[in-house]
Amino acid sequence: MNGSFDDKYDMIGQPPGTLTPIGVKVAKETRIHYVVYDKETKIEKKDSTVQECKKIIESGKNVWIKVIGLSNIDAMHEIGSVFDIHALVLEDVINSNQRPKYEEYDTYLFFIAKLLSYDKAASTVDSSHVSLIMGENYLITFLEDNLPEFFILDQRMDNKNGKIRLKTIDFLSYSILDIIVDCHILLLNDISEDLEELEEKLVQSPGNEDIQIIQKLKRNLIHVRKSIWPLREIVGKLEKEDVKYVSGQNSHYYRDLYEHAVQALETIDNYRDMLSGFLDIYLSSVSNRMNETMKVLTIISTIFIPLSFIAGLYGMNFANMPELGWDHGYHYSLALMAAIVCVMVIFFRNRQWL
Amino acid sequence: MNGSFDDKYDMIGQPPGTLTPIGVKVAKETRIHYVVYDKETKIEKKDSTVQECKKIIESGKNVWIKVIGLSNIDAMHEIGSVFDIHALVLEDVINSNQRPKYEEYDTYLFFIAKLLSYDKAASTVDSSHVSLIMGENYLITFLEDNLPEFFILDQRMDNKNGKIRLKTIDFLSYSILDIIVDCHILLLNDISEDLEELEEKLVQSPGNEDIQIIQKLKRNLIHVRKSIWPLREIVGKLEKEDVKYVSGQNSHYYRDLYEHAVQALETIDNYRDMLSGFLDIYLSSVSNRMNETMKVLTIISTIFIPLSFIAGLYGMNFANMPELGWDHGYHYSLALMAAIVCVMVIFFRNRQWL
Amino acid sequence: MNGSFDDKYDMIGQPPGTLTPIGVKVAKETRIHYVVYDKETKIEKKDSTVQECKKIIESGKNVWIKVIGLSNIDAMHEIGSVFDIHALVLEDVINSNQRPKYEEYDTYLFFIAKLLSYDKAASTVDSSHVSLIMGENYLITFLEDNLPEFFILDQRMDNKNGKIRLKTIDFLSYSILDIIVDCHILLLNDISEDLEELEEKLVQSPGNEDIQIIQKLKRNLIHVRKSIWPLREIVGKLEKEDVKYVSGQNSHYYRDLYEHAVQALETIDNYRDMLSGFLDIYLSSVSNRMNETMKVLTIISTIFIPLSFIAGLYGMNFANMPELGWDHGYHYSLALMAAIVCVMVIFFRNRQWL
Amino acid sequence: MNGSFDDKYDMIGQPPGTLTPIGVKVAKETRIHYVVYDKETKIEKKDSTVQECKKIIESGKNVWIKVIGLSNIDAMHEIGSVFDIHALVLEDVINSNQRPKYEEYDTYLFFIAKLLSYDKAASTVDSSHVSLIMGENYLITFLEDNLPEFFILDQRMDNKNGKIRLKTIDFLSYSILDIIVDCHILLLNDISEDLEELEEKLVQSPGNEDIQIIQKLKRNLIHVRKSIWPLREIVGKLEKEDVKYVSGQNSHYYRDLYEHAVQALETIDNYRDMLSGFLDIYLSSVSNRMNETMKVLTIISTIFIPLSFIAGLYGMNFANMPELGWDHGYHYSLALMAAIVCVMVIFFRNRQWL
Amino acid sequence: MNGSFDDKYDMIGQPPGTLTPIGVKVAKETRIHYVVYDKETKIEKKDSTVQECKKIIESGKNVWIKVIGLSNIDAMHEIGSVFDIHALVLEDVINSNQRPKYEEYDTYLFFIAKLLSYDKAASTVDSSHVSLIMGENYLITFLEDNLPEFFILDQRMDNKNGKIRLKTIDFLSYSILDIIVDCHILLLNDISEDLEELEEKLVQSPGNEDIQIIQKLKRNLIHVRKSIWPLREIVGKLEKEDVKYVSGQNSHYYRDLYEHAVQALETIDNYRDMLSGFLDIYLSSVSNRMNETMKVLTIISTIFIPLSFIAGLYGMNFANMPELGWDHGYHYSLALMAAIVCVMVIFFRNRQWL
Repeated sequence: MNGSFDDKYDMIGQPPGTLTPIGVKVAKETRIHYVVYDKETKIEKKDSTVQECKKIIESGKNVWIKVIGLSNIDAMHEIGSVFDIHALVLEDVINSNQRPKYEEYDTYLFFIAKLLSYDKAASTVDSSHVSLIMGENYLITFLEDNLPEFFILDQRMDNKNGKIRLKTIDFLSYSILDIIVDCHILLLNDISEDLEELEEKLVQSPGNEDIQIIQKLKRNLIHVRKSIWPLREIVGKLEKEDVKYVSGQNSHYYRDLYEHAVQALETIDNYRDMLSGFLDIYLSSVSNRMNETMKVLTIISTIFIPLSFIAGLYGMNFANMPELGWDHGYHYSLALMAAIVCVMVIFFRNRQWL
Repeated sequence: MNGSFDDKYDMIGQPPGTLTPIGVKVAKETRIHYVVYDKETKIEKKDSTVQECKKIIESGKNVWIKVIGLSNIDAMHEIGSVFDIHALVLEDVINSNQRPKYEEYDTYLFFIAKLLSYDKAASTVDSSHVSLIMGENYLITFLEDNLPEFFILDQRMDNKNGKIRLKTIDFLSYSILDIIVDCHILLLNDISEDLEELEEKLVQSPGNEDIQIIQKLKRNLIHVRKSIWPLREIVGKLEKEDVKYVSGQNSHYYRDLYEHAVQALETIDNYRDMLSGFLDIYLSSVSNRMNETMKVLTIISTIFIPLSFIAGLYGMNFANMPELGWDHGYHYSLALMAAIVCVMVIFFRNRQWL
Repeated sequence: MNGSFDDKYDMIGQPPGTLTPIGVKVAKETRIHYVVYDKETKIEKKDSTVQECKKIIESGKNVWIKVIGLSNIDAMHEIGSVFDIHALVLEDVINSNQRPKYEEYDTYLFFIAKLLSYDKAASTVDSSHVSLIMGENYLITFLEDNLPEFFILDQRMDNKNGKIRLKTIDFLSYSILDIIVDCHILLLNDISEDLEELEEKLVQSPGNEDIQIIQKLKRNLIHVRKSIWPLREIVGKLEKEDVKYVSGQNSHYYRDLYEHAVQALETIDNYRDMLSGFLDIYLSSVSNRMNETMKVLTIISTIFIPLSFIAGLYGMNFANMPELGWDHGYHYSLALMAAIVCVMVIFFRNRQWL
Repeated sequence: MNGSFDDKYDMIGQPPGTLTPIGVKVAKETRIHYVVYDKETKIEKKDSTVQECKKIIESGKNVWIKVIGLSNIDAMHEIGSVFDIHALVLEDVINSNQRPKYEEYDTYLFFIAKLLSYDKAASTVDSSHVSLIMGENYLITFLEDNLPEFFILDQRMDNKNGKIRLKTIDFLSYSILDIIVDCHILLLNDISEDLEELEEKLVQSPGNEDIQIIQKLKRNLIHVRKSIWPLREIVGKLEKEDVKYVSGQNSHYYRDLYEHAVQALETIDNYRDMLSGFLDIYLSSVSNRMNETMKVLTIISTIFIPLSFIAGLYGMNFANMPELGWDHGYHYSLALMAAIVCVMVIFFRNRQWL
Repeated sequence: MNGSFDDKYDMIGQPPGTLTPIGVKVAKETRIHYVVYDKETKIEKKDSTVQECKKIIESGKNVWIKVIGLSNIDAMHEIGSVFDIHALVLEDVINSNQRPKYEEYDTYLFFIAKLLSYDKAASTVDSSHVSLIMGENYLITFLEDNLPEFFILDQRMDNKNGKIRLKTIDFLSYSILDIIVDCHILLLNDISEDLEELEEKLVQSPGNEDIQIIQKLKRNLIHVRKSIWPLREIVGKLEKEDVKYVSGQNSHYYRDLYEHAVQALETIDNYRDMLSGFLDIYLSSVSNRMNETMKVLTIISTIFIPLSFIAGLYGMNFANMPELGWDHGYHYSLALMAAIVCVMVIFFRNRQWL
């Protein structure tokens, strides 16, 4: 069930600031990579140590530190103490239930976002917890796992004249947020295909299971909305020109990102409206099918009930029933029945039931 | 499906600011026309070049530069560099999925709007992407195609004493926005006709397809709303007296435009209320039809079932059934049946079913 | 259809500020009357000229200028130029689709309101376009026709000690707005009677047409709301003490008016709630009637089907059916049928269907 | 019908400020009592005169002046002129349709509230119009009739050490508003009992009239809401410390009152939610009953129709029907019928219809 | 019934500030414990006296005073006078109907919250009234009973290096509020399990009682929402840095708490959406079941009615019916019936009813 708190509140008895990984994927180890870059050079180091990273940061160059795998408490504690990160921030980093948020601390900005992906077969939304800590010249990203969505950044960084290499560290964090927002929009695209399929099915052969599909899609949209809504607010705050570590010349990029988030939200509202329209279509189709059933019953019953009555009438055993003795009594009765059928058919034609 | 992102996110791997035309009509070439005008003279030049336009602008006269056809990336790049337009602005200009927006830059104002038209046969809303860049003495309009809705402006400009000729360049952009808002209202007029037709049909002969028509109209209204709502905000900002390049003496015109947009939004809300009322009418009519079906069945069944029973009764083969031997047993039984029919008819009359 | 733009957008090709009467009643001519008054004297002049009015205004006395009939473009142009009225204001004055609004100009205040009346027979709301221009010592009212609702003002002005005579010109415009708000409330009274009738009908004999009546009343309420809502805002602005031409000592009157408008809006919301309650009552009554129909069918069928079966059973022609030969076989079978009827009646009594 | 304007707008032709009692109970006469009190003494005088009250006020002691019966215009005029009350205030005092409001005048505060009570038998809310004018050292209350709800105040004033005696006049008006808010809450208690009864009935034996009861309760809640909502705003304004005549040390009491009003509003919203839940329960129960009806019909029909067919089959009169001649043909046919019944019963058992 | 005012307004005749315990559990006596603590020492005293506590507070050390059992008026009066607590505060402390609130007084902060727990068997939410008074160096908690949820705090306080021991008194009140918010979230977890169960049941075997379960869960959610909503506002106020007695260095903890409350509110909204989706599922399933019932009836009736007619036809007693004399007339008629059954089965197959 989306938005459940199951894992978290095993820790209810713990004092605040105690590190307990919640809901994050269990990687075998916590690995730390870094990339140092400026206009001229770009050096990448895999499986570095916290201390090494600390030194690089102090050298004043732009550094992107990637922490992958969040379930190793000791490593997280070390990161926290070396980089001087507040205990509550670390707690949020390893709690995958934490909603997207943005906080300014004295020496860094901290934000959390969700990288969403759509499992089309099961029609469920998967969510990956992404935390960013941005300081003067460094950006630390915390990921549960090595997410392929971010590989593209490595390629762009290889390009010596790419904007990432030319600009300050906040352009890198913009690029990461941009990828995250794009993932939301891609996911909405996938949902939009499901919506089209569902609409077609509802019009052609609505079934009892459709209402559950509608509910499922509605929940997925709520899930996406709960992720993109706070993200929009975060980007909205970064767009303002007076945020520490965000240079004014990049604010147009953040504004652009903000608009993408707004557009995604509008699309979500649009889809939710469509879903409630689908519910109307479904309910109306159920009513219509019942009406059809009733019509069939009514037509058959209404035609045959009088005929059966006539048959029953001349099946009576009264001693004195003159019609029974007539030569053509049988044929007259058949003619009467035929006449009744005609009247009925005309009646139903008039009602446009036939 | 409205509001789909299909095209856009093929470009998900691209760095921001990369020019890729999205959803715009593919014209063979990008053509640039300009009109230079003041109170005395008006000179029109077709198929000019970017450099020529640049020179005219520097001459200080009022210039309207029309860029028609947005799919030629090289031409767009040239326009961008010669007129010193931000990369993100150019990206928006050629992205027909971009929602209406307004941005102030150092040397120009940038706004995007949608020119809507209604395809009455298919009951779909077509949308044309219009971008405006307004500087000190020039206005650049970017259109996907030569839109006939703007031809009227050429006529008005020919009038030496027309307001466009007498006023500054911001009156020209007001005139363009005015035409765009008018197109929304014309479209609402067309939709209002569809609504009237639908209402009449719903009252006279409601059908299963009507609920889909209702959904379609609802989506069209949402589409129009998504276009006019941000447009209203844009005009609202321009109405304020302290916007660069907008002279205070024209602010009454913008306020007038603002009110038209508000009125269009009210009309949309009104129509949406009507549509949800139509849904009620439809559902109620479905219920009533089912009720009618049930009544027919009930009346026929209820009248004939007792008659058939009597017929069946005297069709029994008991050796000792005195009634069967009576001289007028048959006629008595017929009289009994007639009496039952009378009672039933009176019963249904009382219930107002007949 | 309410809120249609039909007339307006024939003028789509016209430059802004072009005078075209829209939707206003076509009176043969535009007539101008005026009333000059102060504490001592009150002079009324019928069929005056614009120039004469201008002179009276310049004399500094309180003048009420009544312009009746708005379809004469020349006369409107003359009024516009002599009284120095902005072109957009004149456009609004003769456009009966213009929603209520309030604007401050340098030398006058301009407001538009709607005088509504209810055509009880057709259950439609008629709307009359009223424009007011209030300057230092003059008030110009533009009416489509001689509205009887305003005759009462002439009577009050005759009263030498009446408040209108004793106070400044803004009290006159207050009095006019007061009458307009009162008309809204009277109309709501009429609608409230329709609501009561409808409720009674729904409870006693609901019919298929009721849902359309509900929709019609809903639209009427929306119509009234669209008129009184902006009117409330206008009065709210005038109530503030710093509005030009409105003396602080009259602000209590405007506040009183404001509250009447608020009360009308509350009443409208109240009635809309009632209407949606009526829809529930209607739908529930439709369901109940269907249930009743079903019950009748079920009772009759359920009682007679077993009886008919027994009759059919003893109508079989098997050679060896001992019961047929019994002396009282027939009477036994009748007794069995009677027993079945009793059981059925008890069964239905238990279910409270009888 | 709640919220009707019936009485008011007989006065549509009257100039503003004309005194016409609207909807107030017609008492034979207007009576004026007063209570002068301070820490030491408390003097009560029944049937005093306006002039006498005036003198007492000027003595500087705390005075509570009770005006009971509002239909005597002359008396009201006298009160208005002696106490220097604005004409619009007097108009509101005698207009029982006036919604609760609060206004500051130069020499007094004026507020209107509604004392509500519940007529449990008819399930209707009765409303009593209460106006308060509070000056430096006096409080004038205007009541339609001698309301027993306020008798408790006399008792409390008798207590020499009661807070009322020890504090300024604004504590008295707080006490009155406190009683009024309490009456709303008591009324909500009564409605809550009606809700519980209704819920029980809906679950056990829902009937067609329940939907009207739901509507009635909904309207009552709206009525209470319309009374307590502005009251909350009034108290909210008085709670602020800078209101004239309200001493800062009493603001905690007003804040407490404010919270009671908020709690009442929350309760109302809660009850409205419950009512819309009741509607769902009702509609679902109607559907279920129809389903039950259908099931009975279906079971009976489905069992007997095949039996009747077999009976009819062997009632045919073909010359050559071998089964008819069999010795145990009749018993075989009975066995076949029994077998069919068994199959049917098993079928319905599987569907959980039996 | 949730939110009832039953107890409170027995006290309607009482002057404000009179102490009457409302809805609180009746404990035999009011007991007072205290804990004095700093970094080095922690002294706990059970069953102390008010005077003793007063002295400890004046010593300047951090003191947590626990008042357990609120029904002893005399004890409460003593606490009120010794600690100089406002009469209205005391009234709120012993009124379990009081909603969560926050108030600043001169020498202390006062807040009320609700500790909720879920009775899973009865599906009801139990609420425990918790009041906190926080001064410079002391915190007084008022509980109805000894709540096990707070035992954890004693354990944490035993830890010499625990945050509670190291920080100021406001961290203790943060810890208490943290436990209270956690209880809300735990409760939502329990409700989420009920939701999952209900959903499964609705899909598999929906019953008439489910709609009441839906209503019950909806009310529980409203109950939780009414408790957490004001709590969120309280925490939001404490998070601001300028609140007296709350040190800036703890504001991150309050912000964290604030976010948990926001997340709980989002979860509630999410669950309410799910519940309204469940209602749709339920209603749709009721419709579908009725449709199934109708289909069974229609299939059986439609197949057998024509057969019965044929049987009746040849059961007629006309003297001259040639078919009756045919050798294979009986078999021909059986073949005709079989043919009709085949046609019917094909017809229903086409409609996908079989």
